[in-house]
Amino acid sequence: MSDNQEPHYTENVQEHLLQVQHLLEKHALVEAVAHQQEIPRAERHELIDQLLHKRHLAELREMLSSLHPADIAYILEALPIEQRLLVWDQVKADRDGEILIEVSDAVRESLIATMSRDELREAAEQLDTDEIADLAPDLPQAVMRDVFKSLPIEEREQLRAAISYPEDTVGALMDFDMVTIREDVTLEVVSRYLRRFDDLPDHTDQLFVVDRDDIFKGVLPLNLLLVNEPEAGVETLMVSETIVLHPDDKAEQAAQAFERYDLVSAPVVDEDGKLIGRVTVNTVVDYIRSESESDVLNLAGLREEEDIFASVWKSAKNRWMWLALNLCTAFFASRVIGSFESTIEKFVALATLMPIVAGIAGNSANQTTTIIIRSLALGQITSTNTRRLIGKELAIGGLNGLVWGGVAGLFAYFLYKSVLIGLILTGAMLLNLLLGALAAMLIPFAMQRLGRDPAIGSSVMLTAITDSGGFFIFLGLATLFLSR
Amino acid sequence: MSDNQEPHYTENVQEHLLQVQHLLEKHALVEAVAHQQEIPRAERHELIDQLLHKRHLAELREMLSSLHPADIAYILEALPIEQRLLVWDQVKADRDGEILIEVSDAVRESLIATMSRDELREAAEQLDTDEIADLAPDLPQAVMRDVFKSLPIEEREQLRAAISYPEDTVGALMDFDMVTIREDVTLEVVSRYLRRFDDLPDHTDQLFVVDRDDIFKGVLPLNLLLVNEPEAGVETLMVSETIVLHPDDKAEQAAQAFERYDLVSAPVVDEDGKLIGRVTVNTVVDYIRSESESDVLNLAGLREEEDIFASVWKSAKNRWMWLALNLCTAFFASRVIGSFESTIEKFVALATLMPIVAGIAGNSANQTTTIIIRSLALGQITSTNTRRLIGKELAIGGLNGLVWGGVAGLFAYFLYKSVLIGLILTGAMLLNLLLGALAAMLIPFAMQRLGRDPAIGSSVMLTAITDSGGFFIFLGLATLFLSR
Repeated sequence: MSDNQEPHYTENVQEHLLQVQHLLEKHALVEAVAHQQEIPRAERHELIDQLLHKRHLAELREMLSSLHPADIAYILEALPIEQRLLVWDQVKADRDGEILIEVSDAVRESLIATMSRDELREAAEQLDTDEIADLAPDLPQAVMRDVFKSLPIEEREQLRAAISYPEDTVGALMDFDMVTIREDVTLEVVSRYLRRFDDLPDHTDQLFVVDRDDIFKGVLPLNLLLVNEPEAGVETLMVSETIVLHPDDKAEQAAQAFERYDLVSAPVVDEDGKLIGRVTVNTVVDYIRSESESDVLNLAGLREEEDIFASVWKSAKNRWMWLALNLCTAFFASRVIGSFESTIEKFVALATLMPIVAGIAGNSANQTTTIIIRSLALGQITSTNTRRLIGKELAIGGLNGLVWGGVAGLFAYFLYKSVLIGLILTGAMLLNLLLGALAAMLIPFAMQRLGRDPAIGSSVMLTAITDSGGFFIFLGLATLFLSR
Repeated sequence: MSDNQEPHYTENVQEHLLQVQHLLEKHALVEAVAHQQEIPRAERHELIDQLLHKRHLAELREMLSSLHPADIAYILEALPIEQRLLVWDQVKADRDGEILIEVSDAVRESLIATMSRDELREAAEQLDTDEIADLAPDLPQAVMRDVFKSLPIEEREQLRAAISYPEDTVGALMDFDMVTIREDVTLEVVSRYLRRFDDLPDHTDQLFVVDRDDIFKGVLPLNLLLVNEPEAGVETLMVSETIVLHPDDKAEQAAQAFERYDLVSAPVVDEDGKLIGRVTVNTVVDYIRSESESDVLNLAGLREEEDIFASVWKSAKNRWMWLALNLCTAFFASRVIGSFESTIEKFVALATLMPIVAGIAGNSANQTTTIIIRSLALGQITSTNTRRLIGKELAIGGLNGLVWGGVAGLFAYFLYKSVLIGLILTGAMLLNLLLGALAAMLIPFAMQRLGRDPAIGSSVMLTAITDSGGFFIFLGLATLFLSR
């Protein structure tokens, strides 16, 4: 970010949100009053403008201009669409770019939809090339063409490269704001060189040492620059054994490296060893947060982050895939039950007990799969320990089956005074928990082998298996033992 | 961390894990061979030692000594308990402390259990006070007393303070490694002062300006120190409008500030304005990761992170609370069905269809609650937009009820050739989806008002409501309309 003005930090951004909402309410009230009095449209507007309207908006503008772009983004996200656009209009045009970068995808879409081609071009031009690349998917083609033309050759190349990297790679996290130095100089020379800058790029915790051909040689942490004597040479102090990322590396791997090694920045180098960019910890933090959010959203069957004030229609579409899928598995489970209708007719108790078999196994399987998916993501499951893990999870499934199946069996016995029904329930729960544990491991393993993310979709399949499987096992056992 | 040796970064820690596993397997093989030949125990050990055993362990030791503590932690977590302890024994004692800090809670427990009081004391003494505080809950009281005695007065105070802060506060994230300067000096003086250090603390991106009484005045970013002329004064360059944390602030709030403002470090100040510590981005990253992990774990009903190689018994206990709770709600749902036994006896189709009503509403409600919980966590839901949100979610519930209820109704009609059953199913799904949507909002709102984390436990309650509610509505409607 190239902000020259001092950033304004606030300790409690929620207070600002409340202030904005308060101003907007007053503003709306004035509009409403003018409305009620049925003043002709033209006059009404004049009146409002003259009276209070303008004052509230001016107050709003002033407040916004003192806020950090990230805080404005936060406020925009928390406002319903028409209020959001009103606030967006009050933001100074020269801050549009920074704010568009900060808002969530869904909200960004709603803001961009209201901006003209020129406004968008101006907003994009305020940004660094890596940031333009982040906006690119949301910008109209024509705007991107304009922006492209306005850039100097070198930055065009950067932008082209930045856009080309797939979303989950280091290339997509990379920026180009790095300070490079040569190894054959002294710290004194480096210090003099740095004093020629107006400001160093954010998150400059180390300088990158390269040769004439931009080949990466190592890093000089600012720490070392500061604690050593000016006469010392870069060559003797620079650290050449350091983490080096490649643009095609997976973003998750880079994030894990930042976490493990407590990095603030890391160089990105191409296949020829040329330094082409760097990744900084703030990008990594955003990546980790957005990944963890999409994990939680995916678990609940939401395709993407939702603008909480999106239209009902838009939100519903975000949720339909999952519900449709679940309906299909529910239909299947329903047909499994249907095939035992005659048994249920004779022993209606079965209908009351069958949800227990399906539910507990589903929950237990979900616990297992959560642990397996996490371990897979960390790469902690290797061929040597897989069998052991499977054994352990089956043992837990068995233990849970005996304990909770036993409890449920007793419950059924006391209700229906039938030892047989109790035993059938216990047996069915034991078997279904074992089935669930097995599926909870095999599904993520299979998904990973197929190159898919095990976190997405495992749970639908799992529930389908423990539901249909549970009904089949329970009603099947009942048909076998009760019906004769 | 006070490592003087250069940290060793590896780009692919999984390779090292595989190497370790390979060495351990060879090691185990040798033991097994010796076992089979039934050589007396004493001789056997000698033999193994002389032959291969020692060689493998030596190889292992060498490899471990070249690894970063975080990587060793990773490997320890991925090994079953007996292999883990074998590897732990090969780690040089002077690295124990750093590694204990890095491993997960569950694994740390397993390692500490094997260490003597002296070993633990030595390990703890290698650490900074804020790190000792992190270990404290896992260390025996006697060890903590020893460690305490070994510290200089100032650090004792720090440790006492660090231990006293609750887990989710800024105080618990804070460290004491900061460089402070006075405002009435020039950059030249600051530079000379810094050159007296052997090394600056990790993540020193800014120096903290304090007065004689340690009252916090502002920060001097290293950036500014480097780009300005040595004659400039700290006073004119220092930034006084900056984020300032307090030890009692919520950790989540600090994490959000780091994310929003892209911070690397931030000062922590007590109620008198005295600088008492700092928070750095690496701690924040760890916090964010562990929070997001516990979110996912809690959603699946796991109390805490599990050591994947913990005993069956230990793992089962981690999962029982949830299963027990679910069993109770399942019993309740079962009794709801039970009260309609006579209707089911007459229309057994109801038994096959009822899981559909419960399932879809459960999924849809889960989607709603996920979005609500996320918005609550971000503080985006305020009194002015609550009603609007409720309206929107009810509308989505209604829309989904009509669409998916309609589809399910058609399914039932084609199966059972009864318009009435189809209509009852559609109506029940519509009502249950509305009920689910309402509960999905009110439960997290209520939990938050009660000061509890809405992410924990909301889903059990929700499922209980959509299950029992769904059965009640569907079977109730059927009894009303079919039975006459």
